[in-house]
Amino acid sequence: MEPHAFTLYDVLARNAEAQRDDLALIAEDGSARTFAELRARVDALGSGLAARGLAEGDRVAVLAQNFAAYFELYLACARQGLVAYPFNWRWSVEEVERLLERAGARAFVADQSTLDKVPAAVHAVSNLAFRAVFDGAPGAGWIRFDDLYAAAVTPPPSLDATAPFAVIATAAVDVIPRGAVLTHGNVLASSAMQIGTMGLGPSDRNLLALPLFHIAALGNAMGILQAGGANVVMAKFDAEAAVELIDRFAVTYLSDFPPVATGVLDAAQKRGTRLPSLRFVSGLDHPAVMARLQQETSADFWTGFGQTETSGFVTIQRYRDLPGGAGKPGSLCRVRLVDDCDREVPAGTPGEILVRGPIVFQGYDGQPHVTAHTFRGGWHHTGDVGRFGEDGTLFYVKRKPEKELIKPGGENVYPAEVESVIMTVEGVTGVCVFGVPDPKWGEGIKAVIETGRTDLTLEAVRDHVGASIARYKRPGYVELTAELPRKDDGAIDRDAVKARWP
Amino acid sequence: MEPHAFTLYDVLARNAEAQRDDLALIAEDGSARTFAELRARVDALGSGLAARGLAEGDRVAVLAQNFAAYFELYLACARQGLVAYPFNWRWSVEEVERLLERAGARAFVADQSTLDKVPAAVHAVSNLAFRAVFDGAPGAGWIRFDDLYAAAVTPPPSLDATAPFAVIATAAVDVIPRGAVLTHGNVLASSAMQIGTMGLGPSDRNLLALPLFHIAALGNAMGILQAGGANVVMAKFDAEAAVELIDRFAVTYLSDFPPVATGVLDAAQKRGTRLPSLRFVSGLDHPAVMARLQQETSADFWTGFGQTETSGFVTIQRYRDLPGGAGKPGSLCRVRLVDDCDREVPAGTPGEILVRGPIVFQGYDGQPHVTAHTFRGGWHHTGDVGRFGEDGTLFYVKRKPEKELIKPGGENVYPAEVESVIMTVEGVTGVCVFGVPDPKWGEGIKAVIETGRTDLTLEAVRDHVGASIARYKRPGYVELTAELPRKDDGAIDRDAVKARWP
Repeated sequence: MEPHAFTLYDVLARNAEAQRDDLALIAEDGSARTFAELRARVDALGSGLAARGLAEGDRVAVLAQNFAAYFELYLACARQGLVAYPFNWRWSVEEVERLLERAGARAFVADQSTLDKVPAAVHAVSNLAFRAVFDGAPGAGWIRFDDLYAAAVTPPPSLDATAPFAVIATAAVDVIPRGAVLTHGNVLASSAMQIGTMGLGPSDRNLLALPLFHIAALGNAMGILQAGGANVVMAKFDAEAAVELIDRFAVTYLSDFPPVATGVLDAAQKRGTRLPSLRFVSGLDHPAVMARLQQETSADFWTGFGQTETSGFVTIQRYRDLPGGAGKPGSLCRVRLVDDCDREVPAGTPGEILVRGPIVFQGYDGQPHVTAHTFRGGWHHTGDVGRFGEDGTLFYVKRKPEKELIKPGGENVYPAEVESVIMTVEGVTGVCVFGVPDPKWGEGIKAVIETGRTDLTLEAVRDHVGASIARYKRPGYVELTAELPRKDDGAIDRDAVKARWP
Repeated sequence: MEPHAFTLYDVLARNAEAQRDDLALIAEDGSARTFAELRARVDALGSGLAARGLAEGDRVAVLAQNFAAYFELYLACARQGLVAYPFNWRWSVEEVERLLERAGARAFVADQSTLDKVPAAVHAVSNLAFRAVFDGAPGAGWIRFDDLYAAAVTPPPSLDATAPFAVIATAAVDVIPRGAVLTHGNVLASSAMQIGTMGLGPSDRNLLALPLFHIAALGNAMGILQAGGANVVMAKFDAEAAVELIDRFAVTYLSDFPPVATGVLDAAQKRGTRLPSLRFVSGLDHPAVMARLQQETSADFWTGFGQTETSGFVTIQRYRDLPGGAGKPGSLCRVRLVDDCDREVPAGTPGEILVRGPIVFQGYDGQPHVTAHTFRGGWHHTGDVGRFGEDGTLFYVKRKPEKELIKPGGENVYPAEVESVIMTVEGVTGVCVFGVPDPKWGEGIKAVIETGRTDLTLEAVRDHVGASIARYKRPGYVELTAELPRKDDGAIDRDAVKARWP
């Protein structure tokens, strides 16, 4: 192995060597592990995975809420060169099934809360090394996750930072979510940038409350690890419990997607605490929420532009630096704004946001043509549109029409997918789905439906959508019309729809 | 080009895009360049180098004091994929000549202060694209460096972080200094680690007073660039001028090797300033000097363990954190301590310091066997000995006998080289050269000489050494003896010599 080689497991090993008795992981029940203990757990788990026949490059699918063991599994995968393939527990059985086919997983891990989402198909996958549950009693064909920790530790394979670490689902442009392949180097670079920009260190503690299948949760957890700090693991976000954990364990860092910050601020108010330990909240939220955080606590709201494909934030700033701004590119990336012909646009003019640097993902899993297109000209094309201020600050403008993503509570919802489901409702002849401001989730889903029917209710549409795809993809707003505006070629005129039904 | 590609030129480009009007470079005369201006200069210089026929992988030798243009040359090399090969201006003509042979340079840059060190050989190198001087009138066969900046900018080649960036001379174990090959990725990782640990940002300003051929100067200059801060360039360190520049340009960062910090503190005292802008001094110095810095200014002294081969610091801490300690490994590296059989030693026991991570150099230029030996087992063997405290802090112990390096004022002096020169003095039958504490330079060179002569003076020995190798390699202390202690095999017993002539 080359002495330049360095992985996320090396980050853990470095901490176990340099900060052995510092806390690394704290569970909701208050039980905690030092870095030395965490490393011992990860060594045992990695060895156990190898003993079960998992080898470098194999994928491990995970469909579960957050557990300390889930975090350990990420690091054990990092140790063995396995690729973690986290699934969104909000997906429907059918979505899990479709992704399972694409993932080619060699192991499957679930928990009691997700077992009913596990498709029958998982039992038909012939080369599965094991099916394990994090908690509770395993049913037939399942083992306890705890039993995977081996008593005898075996050495890991030689790996370097170019090895893939995880495949994170992004957006279901073509019904099956695309999987962004992130390497160790991607996550290391993203964390280094975050540590440098925000000033994170060993005294920081992150509340790991967002789901670990999301880049915001995973990225911040790894960033805090790299900073030598501790992660406080919540199974699932709950505002009152979060406030209690923040105060009890002197949490300094919180990741936010609506309505996390609002919930935390409301609960803090109710409890009569100003969350004195909190220093950083990062994510995307309403300006009013960011301003409120500043008023009611001593924390700063860090916001910017980023996506799964860039391992997290590309540009970042404190809300108070320039309300409305998305910040400047971090020190390990470059950003260009271009028109549809990839020509750079001047400051002030909106253009597609292109990114280059070690934070850019390796491509979409199993989709080399899509990847090549996204990477054309040597820059990652984000599908998002922004403009630069004169001083180089990025302002977010909108998504490109062909990647018209809706982000309720940080999730990715593609209008095309929801539209294809609504089109199967009897009597529907056309539909246009788009994002609208939503007080709770930041962005809500609106469907304008062309139909002769007058009996179609919001509830009926929601039930129909929720029955076949994830519930977070259900529209929150529905309007019926006898005729949608169309262009000369018969395509729905989306801009006209949005203008008429804002 | 892959969108993950990122070089030191991309760092400059990022700053020119995101901080275009912020100051990047300030010269001693007060003239300054913004990042946009610096990038334009570097684009012009890079294009000029390409126009002169220099192509990716070609080496550019530089023998000069610090200039803004020297810094620009580093970045132009980064843009074009050229490899900067800085020479130490303290070397003798013969040393420059020997290294010139090994370097295989395709261009040579000097200044008026070094022209007398330029060997005649440089005119005999047939494939040299040009010989340029940074300042003054060029003689026959030389051009003005300024003339290399092209009017028409041409695009750079595609490069990534694995491309070599510079070859930095380390130590003359075998008379010719070894050249450590550092890639873009090495320097980027080292800077990221430094930025994160120390908390550097766009408001920081580094006094670039140590020579640019030294990793401490080059590394910190690149670190401040990556942080978005400015470099204030001094041709050559001078204590009074340094104090004036620090106060005038609100310098926050100073690199130190003895006697830089002492000189600055003395001059500050004389001038009646407490250097209010200064926040960081990094390097190696006497404990008394580090303590004095703390008392007399509001700056922190950051010290640790590092070398050229690790792109700078490996471990680092503030002096006040634990006087006597060398700090903990940074977040992007791991450190192991081993015995002579590469077996890990327990805490408290001295062992050779091994390092792994993206800061580890790519190898010694043109010396694959030495490199393979140094990298055995997948770890870089530093040749230095340390021990770990119980909490994982490194304490520096000594150099390994076979790499018994002396470091007067941050320079590397190998006893074997000095001994081989002293052995050529008439009447000398044996010699042992080693380092001793020196009030001014941190470490001084002592020679214990076995000779029947009684007329051999310190001055005569110094003149003899200074006539054939660099003047900083001259012993400051000489003792004569009729007989050196020897081992059974006839080899000089170095430990016995040091014990008897401490």
